[in-house]
Amino acid sequence: MTATQDMLVPSFDDEVETGRKLAIIISKGSLDMAYPGLILGNAALGEGVEVELFFTFWGFDIITKGRMEHLKFSPVGNPAAHIPAALAPIPGMTSMATHMMHKSLEELEIPDVPEFLELVKASGARIWACRLSADMNHLSADDLWDGVDGIINASDFIEMTDGAQLLFI
Amino acid sequence: MTATQDMLVPSFDDEVETGRKLAIIISKGSLDMAYPGLILGNAALGEGVEVELFFTFWGFDIITKGRMEHLKFSPVGNPAAHIPAALAPIPGMTSMATHMMHKSLEELEIPDVPEFLELVKASGARIWACRLSADMNHLSADDLWDGVDGIINASDFIEMTDGAQLLFI
Amino acid sequence: MTATQDMLVPSFDDEVETGRKLAIIISKGSLDMAYPGLILGNAALGEGVEVELFFTFWGFDIITKGRMEHLKFSPVGNPAAHIPAALAPIPGMTSMATHMMHKSLEELEIPDVPEFLELVKASGARIWACRLSADMNHLSADDLWDGVDGIINASDFIEMTDGAQLLFI
Repeated sequence: MTATQDMLVPSFDDEVETGRKLAIIISKGSLDMAYPGLILGNAALGEGVEVELFFTFWGFDIITKGRMEHLKFSPVGNPAAHIPAALAPIPGMTSMATHMMHKSLEELEIPDVPEFLELVKASGARIWACRLSADMNHLSADDLWDGVDGIINASDFIEMTDGAQLLFI
Repeated sequence: MTATQDMLVPSFDDEVETGRKLAIIISKGSLDMAYPGLILGNAALGEGVEVELFFTFWGFDIITKGRMEHLKFSPVGNPAAHIPAALAPIPGMTSMATHMMHKSLEELEIPDVPEFLELVKASGARIWACRLSADMNHLSADDLWDGVDGIINASDFIEMTDGAQLLFI
Repeated sequence: MTATQDMLVPSFDDEVETGRKLAIIISKGSLDMAYPGLILGNAALGEGVEVELFFTFWGFDIITKGRMEHLKFSPVGNPAAHIPAALAPIPGMTSMATHMMHKSLEELEIPDVPEFLELVKASGARIWACRLSADMNHLSADDLWDGVDGIINASDFIEMTDGAQLLFI
């Protein structure tokens, strides 16, 4: 087992009622920023932590049918992607960068986004869609991934995260 | 009352001394990323949570007179905005995307940023400006929105957030 | 002593065992987004807070030899940088914007990134590199800054942050 696989296979032996909760707000919908919440959520589940994932703003794409399978990575404006700024906006660059990122993820045996969602859902994460984002996108529950537990508003989110550790991605 | 309005009108009936605190660091100054902190802060206030908003780095624009009224949205580098990468940097695109976002927010009866700041301030949020950002922008208290409670440094922020839930936006 | 210097010189007189912990995930590798984690971490150390910095995704550059000295700032896609969208992607803009940001940081006597890392390390921060990011970048411990305490995975991070306040940058 490689170090990477080790990270993706939570050790459920450890799972006990810890009372610890982690709530992650996922607000970005690019391919690269879809992963941190899934990876951290998955790791937390493996440590017996209760996990709530709240998809909002641009992150709403990650749980939207027809979009979740086609997230893209753009190197534009991200100097750490090491692609010259003058090249970044040329046509085809987003496709190429997305393709390269998929290849890199596959090499490390990291599941694609829909599969990763299934994984964290099966491990007990609760998946929430933001009411406001649904309204802005003119989308309803039928348009969302089947694993979504519900469409909730910001007040609901605040109520359910009392005592939780929070992350905004 | 629509679901969206419901989210924006905190139910102050619930407000009791919960002892719960939420501190949100707002570091981005684009129109889209100005909203998450305001919406979450507003929802938290409605649930009786004490809210501190700390405006820093690019987010300093949100509380700067002459800038706070003119925040812009750029789709560049954001594939979830669903505008082709080759079109995104053409002249006029930022104005057009900003205009479209304003329209979308208006349709959902979401207040614009200065009005939203008034709203959370009236509901009890404390609004802090970052000392370092003020210095970098060569700005003083007079240049900032009247609702700002003070200009503080990072050490002050750490001191006032003992026991708080934290978000970095 | 200026207000800025005041912020960068933690008052270690205050340092006592507070039991408070702050864990910061640093996922961006641009020059501007390298600073918030360092500044907040430094301030927290000065208040007697235990600090863990976890460098991952694009933020991995910040602790990578040969990259950490050359972080760049791109105004592309960031309207708060106040550079016209049509100008932002022209050749040389990233270099110019990076140069201007360095000048602005120097004026405020803010250390550059490698020096700032030394500072927080000397003040007691623990510095962690993400295993998955190392694998994606085909890098090993030898390629990383000497101050790195170890390469850990997401599960390790979850384990070490029980009871901590969290930030994702």
